[in-house]
Amino acid sequence: MVAQKLREFGCDEIVEGIGRTGVVGVIHGSRGMGRTIGLRADMDALPIEEQTGKPHASKNPGMMHACGHDGHTAMLLGAARYLSETRNFSGKAVVIFQPAEEGGAGGKAMVEDGLMDRFGIDEVYGLHNMPGLPVGEFAIRSGPIMAATDEFDITISGKGSHAAMPHQSVDPITIAAQCIMAMQTIVSRGVDPVESLVVSVTQVHSGFTDNVIPTTAMLNGTVRSLKPELRDFAETRIRQIVNGIVEAHGASVEIDYFRNYPVTHNHPEQTQKAIAIAEAVVGVGKVEKDVRPMLGGEDFSYMLEKRPGAFIFMGNGDTASLHNPAYDFNDDAIPVGSSYWAKLVETLLPPR
Amino acid sequence: MVAQKLREFGCDEIVEGIGRTGVVGVIHGSRGMGRTIGLRADMDALPIEEQTGKPHASKNPGMMHACGHDGHTAMLLGAARYLSETRNFSGKAVVIFQPAEEGGAGGKAMVEDGLMDRFGIDEVYGLHNMPGLPVGEFAIRSGPIMAATDEFDITISGKGSHAAMPHQSVDPITIAAQCIMAMQTIVSRGVDPVESLVVSVTQVHSGFTDNVIPTTAMLNGTVRSLKPELRDFAETRIRQIVNGIVEAHGASVEIDYFRNYPVTHNHPEQTQKAIAIAEAVVGVGKVEKDVRPMLGGEDFSYMLEKRPGAFIFMGNGDTASLHNPAYDFNDDAIPVGSSYWAKLVETLLPPR
Amino acid sequence: MVAQKLREFGCDEIVEGIGRTGVVGVIHGSRGMGRTIGLRADMDALPIEEQTGKPHASKNPGMMHACGHDGHTAMLLGAARYLSETRNFSGKAVVIFQPAEEGGAGGKAMVEDGLMDRFGIDEVYGLHNMPGLPVGEFAIRSGPIMAATDEFDITISGKGSHAAMPHQSVDPITIAAQCIMAMQTIVSRGVDPVESLVVSVTQVHSGFTDNVIPTTAMLNGTVRSLKPELRDFAETRIRQIVNGIVEAHGASVEIDYFRNYPVTHNHPEQTQKAIAIAEAVVGVGKVEKDVRPMLGGEDFSYMLEKRPGAFIFMGNGDTASLHNPAYDFNDDAIPVGSSYWAKLVETLLPPR
Amino acid sequence: MVAQKLREFGCDEIVEGIGRTGVVGVIHGSRGMGRTIGLRADMDALPIEEQTGKPHASKNPGMMHACGHDGHTAMLLGAARYLSETRNFSGKAVVIFQPAEEGGAGGKAMVEDGLMDRFGIDEVYGLHNMPGLPVGEFAIRSGPIMAATDEFDITISGKGSHAAMPHQSVDPITIAAQCIMAMQTIVSRGVDPVESLVVSVTQVHSGFTDNVIPTTAMLNGTVRSLKPELRDFAETRIRQIVNGIVEAHGASVEIDYFRNYPVTHNHPEQTQKAIAIAEAVVGVGKVEKDVRPMLGGEDFSYMLEKRPGAFIFMGNGDTASLHNPAYDFNDDAIPVGSSYWAKLVETLLPPR
Repeated sequence: MVAQKLREFGCDEIVEGIGRTGVVGVIHGSRGMGRTIGLRADMDALPIEEQTGKPHASKNPGMMHACGHDGHTAMLLGAARYLSETRNFSGKAVVIFQPAEEGGAGGKAMVEDGLMDRFGIDEVYGLHNMPGLPVGEFAIRSGPIMAATDEFDITISGKGSHAAMPHQSVDPITIAAQCIMAMQTIVSRGVDPVESLVVSVTQVHSGFTDNVIPTTAMLNGTVRSLKPELRDFAETRIRQIVNGIVEAHGASVEIDYFRNYPVTHNHPEQTQKAIAIAEAVVGVGKVEKDVRPMLGGEDFSYMLEKRPGAFIFMGNGDTASLHNPAYDFNDDAIPVGSSYWAKLVETLLPPR
Repeated sequence: MVAQKLREFGCDEIVEGIGRTGVVGVIHGSRGMGRTIGLRADMDALPIEEQTGKPHASKNPGMMHACGHDGHTAMLLGAARYLSETRNFSGKAVVIFQPAEEGGAGGKAMVEDGLMDRFGIDEVYGLHNMPGLPVGEFAIRSGPIMAATDEFDITISGKGSHAAMPHQSVDPITIAAQCIMAMQTIVSRGVDPVESLVVSVTQVHSGFTDNVIPTTAMLNGTVRSLKPELRDFAETRIRQIVNGIVEAHGASVEIDYFRNYPVTHNHPEQTQKAIAIAEAVVGVGKVEKDVRPMLGGEDFSYMLEKRPGAFIFMGNGDTASLHNPAYDFNDDAIPVGSSYWAKLVETLLPPR
Repeated sequence: MVAQKLREFGCDEIVEGIGRTGVVGVIHGSRGMGRTIGLRADMDALPIEEQTGKPHASKNPGMMHACGHDGHTAMLLGAARYLSETRNFSGKAVVIFQPAEEGGAGGKAMVEDGLMDRFGIDEVYGLHNMPGLPVGEFAIRSGPIMAATDEFDITISGKGSHAAMPHQSVDPITIAAQCIMAMQTIVSRGVDPVESLVVSVTQVHSGFTDNVIPTTAMLNGTVRSLKPELRDFAETRIRQIVNGIVEAHGASVEIDYFRNYPVTHNHPEQTQKAIAIAEAVVGVGKVEKDVRPMLGGEDFSYMLEKRPGAFIFMGNGDTASLHNPAYDFNDDAIPVGSSYWAKLVETLLPPR
Repeated sequence: MVAQKLREFGCDEIVEGIGRTGVVGVIHGSRGMGRTIGLRADMDALPIEEQTGKPHASKNPGMMHACGHDGHTAMLLGAARYLSETRNFSGKAVVIFQPAEEGGAGGKAMVEDGLMDRFGIDEVYGLHNMPGLPVGEFAIRSGPIMAATDEFDITISGKGSHAAMPHQSVDPITIAAQCIMAMQTIVSRGVDPVESLVVSVTQVHSGFTDNVIPTTAMLNGTVRSLKPELRDFAETRIRQIVNGIVEAHGASVEIDYFRNYPVTHNHPEQTQKAIAIAEAVVGVGKVEKDVRPMLGGEDFSYMLEKRPGAFIFMGNGDTASLHNPAYDFNDDAIPVGSSYWAKLVETLLPPR
C-alpha cells in the first residue's frame, strides 16, 4: 500500500523488498544537484488486542498499532506527497518505510540490503511519537537516546535427586538463586553511578513437582546499556559471575548472550540540525534539547551506525503508554510530523 | 481379586470398601479367645512405564508395581491362606489390604473409616521391601523410621514492569531468590545437628519473556521431618522467613502449607516384638535393629497413630531403587515375608 | 592568619569566629551602591601523612593539605587583596573563609551562625580544584553537581550460642549477609537507570572467636544521592529491607540514619553567570558546561540552600587524586582562580 | 600436686613432664601378670571469672574450673589411692593426668610424647561430667560421641575505593556476604539429613569507616563433624564455594583450614565394657547406652586413635552448663567417678 501511494504521489523511484518487505521512495528536488537525506518511518504492528474502542481501531484480531507506527507511516507519506508536489529542494529525499522494528531488526535488514549505498544517502533521520509529551512539542538529545538491548539465556545443570535426599543432588535452584542475587551487584557495585545500565533477570524456571530436586534451572533476561563499554562489561560480568557460582557448587552451565539492537546514538551536528528544524516547526521553547535517554531499544540504531543522523521524539499528548492495549496514536500530531519531515528536507537541502 | 482370594481361603469375615477400595479379612484363631492383631499390606501401583523386560512385567501401559506393593499383597495373602488353614492361634488376625499409599493417603482413609474400632484391632504391623538389603534380612528401628512429608506452595506477588524500567517494578524474582537462600538457614542454623530435617525448594517459576519483569513468582517444595516439633518448626520458619523477606521488599505473598503423612513412628515394645519375630524367621544377626530412618513418607503412619505397632523393612536384594522403572520385586522374598506374618500372629497370639 | 592578611589588605570589615573558626571579610566597592556577592574558600587540612616530598610539604606530621584547601585560601586571599586595592565594583564583596569542610560541616555552622543575613549576601559562589582537568580549564553543571552524603549504622541483635549448637542461636552473621545482599537491590532494582544513587555497606563486624556464634552484627555505610527523592527512597528502603529480614529471622535491630551534607545544587542562572565569567578568564572552549556530577559531598551545599549561587571546578593538572598522600595543589592555578574571583565580582557588581 | 599425691599413695612409678606438664602414675596389681589399662583425667582450668560464690570458688582471678576438670582429677586421684592400697587386680593400671584439654591439645602432646608405648597401655578410658544428667547416672554411646573440631580462616582480597565510587572497587563485603550464604548450603543441601555436620561462620570483619570500600574481608569459623568423610566434605566444599564466589567477582582469597581435635570415637567392645562397669556401679537402668553425640570437641580423641577404649559421661546434676561462670562441679559425684575407675580396673584386669 505504501509503494502504491508513493507511485500515486509521483516519486521518482520506488523500490520494494529492501530488507525483505521494506519500501523506499526517492524524490528528486528541482532546485539543483545536492546531497541525499534519508527519512525513516517504521510500519509494523504488535500482537496485542486493541482496547481503544475507537472507530479506527484495528480490524485484525490480536493485532494493533500499539506503538503508533501507522502514524509514523502516515506522516512520512504526507511529507512524501508534499515533497513530490513541491520539490523545492536540491539533491534527493529518500523516504524509508521499514518493517519489523519490534524485535525483528528490520532496520538492520534494510541496512544489510545496501540501503545506504544503493540510494547514496548522506544523512538519515528518524522520528517517534511519545505519549505524555504534549502534541506540538519535540524532545531529543545528542548522544545515546535509546539503549542497546541484549538478551541472555542461562541453563544451569546440577544433579537431580529425591527431595528428601538433597545430599544426592547438586541443587540447581539454590545455585540459580545465588546467581540472581550476585547479578544485582553488576549494577549496584560495578557501574559508575552517573552511568546507566540495567541487568534484569526476567525468567527463572526450574522443577516440576514437590518431591524431586530437578536437574536444571533456566534463567533468562535482558541487558540495557547506553555505552558500548558498559554493554561489554555486562556480558563479561554475567559470564564471570555465573561461571564462578556454578563452579562453586560443582554444577555446569551454558550461557548464551545475544547482542540485539545497538545504542541509538544521535550524532551531535545532526542533533543540532534536528533541533533547529523542530523549533522552526513548533517554536523555540517547545523542543526539549536534553531529554533523558530511554532504555528501550530501536533498530534505527543500525542506520545511525552507517550514516550521521538523529532520532527525535514528538509529542503524542495524553494517551496510554506505548505497547499498551489502550494506546492510540493522536491524529492531531500528523501535521506536526509531516511538517518536520518537509522542513527538514527543505532546510538541509536548500535550493541552489 | 484380594477379596475373592480371602473368600477362597476361608477367612471368617471379608469387608470391602473400607477407605473406598480397601479390603479387610478377619481370621479367627482356634486356640481360644484373645487379642486382635492387624497386618497391613499396600496394594497400589505407580504411573511409571516398566522397563524390567521381565515376563511378569506390567501389562498396563504407563503403570507398574515400582514399589513392590504387588509383592506386599502376595506375601500377606500367603499368610492369610496359611493362617486360615492352620488357625493355630488365639484371638483374631486382621489382614488389611490398603489402597493408595503413593500420596493418596489410603491408610488415612481406612483409619477414618473406622478400621481400628470396627475390627477391634489391638496392635498393627506393617512391612516394606528394601532394595539393597539382602533377601533374608530385616531392618527396623524403634521410634521414627520414616518421615513426615509436607508440601508448601508460595506465591509472591510483586509488580510487573518493562524490563528496562526495574524502578517501576517490585521484582518478584529477586525476592524469590532471597527466600530460597534464607530458607537454607532453617536447616543449617535452626536444627540441632544430631536431628534430621529437610527443607527442599523443588520448584521456582517466574516470568514469560526477556523484556518484562513479571508480577509473580511461585515456589514449591517439601519438608521432611522425624519429629513433630521439627515439623512445626519448619512450617513456622518458612512462614516467618517468607513473610519477612516479602515485607522487606514491599511485595505480598500467599503461603499454603499442607501437612501430609505424619512420621511413621515405631512403638518401642512392638518394635522389640517385631525384632524377635524377624530373628525367629531369619536368624539372629540378620536383623538390623537400629537402621537409619528414611526421609521418605508412608501412610502406615496413620495406623501407628491409632494403635501400637511397628513397621519393618525386609531385604529385596540387588534391584533398582524404589520408584525406578527398572525396579523388580524379588519373588525369593515372598516366603520370608509370609513367614514373618504367620510367625507374628502365632507368637503375639499364643494358643491358650 | 587569614584575618591578619585581610586586615593588611585593607578590608572594610573582618569578622572572626563565624561558625566557630570561620573568617569573613567585607570589601566595599567604590563604584556605587549595589548587591552583595559572597565568595567562599575552605581552609581545613586532612589527617593524612604527606608523601609529595615537595619543599612546601606540610610541616605538621600526619596532617596535610590533601584536598588543596590551602590553594583555595590563597586564591581567595589574592582576590581579596586585588579587590581591596582596586574596588572597581559597586556594592560589596564578602570573602568567606570556611573551616571544617571535611566532614565537619563548617559551611553549615557558618550558615547557622547567620552568615547570609548578617552580611546581606545576595548570591554566593564556590570553587574547587580538580586533579586531571588541565590548569586553565573549568568545569561546571547546572543542577546537582555533588552528592548528598548520608551515613547509616545498623546493629542486628540475635542470640549467641556455642558454634556447635547453631539451633540455640539466632545467628546475626547470616542475617547481616542477607541484609547486605538485599540492599544491593535498592540500586539495581529500585532506581531509574538514568538516575544516580549509591548505597555502600562499608563495614561489617561481628564475632570474636571461632567457636562462639556472636550475639550482634554491625553494619555501617553511606548513601550518596543527587536528588532529595532518591535520598528519601534510600533511607526508606534500607529501613524496610533490614527490618523485614531481621523479622524473618526473629532478631531485632537498631537502625540509625544520619543525613549529612545535602546535594550541592547549582542554580541555573548563577551557573550561566559562572560559565560566562570563567570563559572570560580562560577563553571559550575551556569551560566544560555539563560536567558529570561527582558523588562526593561538599558543605558549600548548605550555602546554596540559602542563596542562589554556583560551585565550579578548576583544573589542577596532572597530580594525584584528592585525599591521596601524593596530592599536590598546582601553584600555576593560583592566578587562574584569583582572576575568576576578581572577574566574578567586577562582572556581577558592575560599576554604576 | 598430682605427682606429690601419687607418691604419697605409693604408686609404683610416677613420671612428670609427659606432653610438657602431664603426669602419669603406674600402679602394679598384686594378683598376677596381665594387661595394662590407662585411665585418663584432664586437669586444666579456663580463663573465666568464677561467679558461683561458693567457698571453694577459684582463688585465681579470671581463672576457674568451669569444665569440672578439678573434679575429674579428684576422682582419678581417689581411684589411684584405692588401687594403690588394695592392688586387687592383675597387670597394671596407668593413671593419666593430662594438661591443656581446652584447645591446647594436651592429649595429643602426651600421645606424641610416647604415652601409649612407654607405659605399654592396652586400652584407655576417659570420663567427663555432664550437667543436666542426674548424679548417679552415666551416658555413653558406641562410635562417635564427640565431634572433630576444625577452624577456618578466610581472607578475601578485593580492591578498595571511595564509597561513592563502587565501580572502582572490587567490593569484598558483598563477596563475603555471598560466601556466608553459600556456605549454608553445605549443610542444608550437602549432608544426608540423618548425619551431623555443623559449619558456623562465627566472625566477619571488614571495613573501618563509612566512606571507604575496604580492600579485604575476613571470615572465620568452625566445622564440627562426627565422621571423617564429612570432615573432608566440609573442607572441600568450603574451599570450592569460596574460591568459586571469589572468582565470580574477580577477587582473590586465602583460605586456611586447620584440623584440630579428631572425632572422639568410642570402640564398640570397650563401650560395652564401660556400660557393664557403669551398671555395676550405679545399677541397670541408670546408664543411657545410646546418648546423642555432642558436637563439642575432646582431645581424648587422640588417645582413642592409638588404643581401643571408651569415653563416658557421668551425671553432674543440676548446675550451670559447662564453660559457664556459674558452673559448679558436684562433689556428690566424686565417689561415683572413683568407683567407676576402681571397678573398671578390677573388672578388666581380673585377679589371676
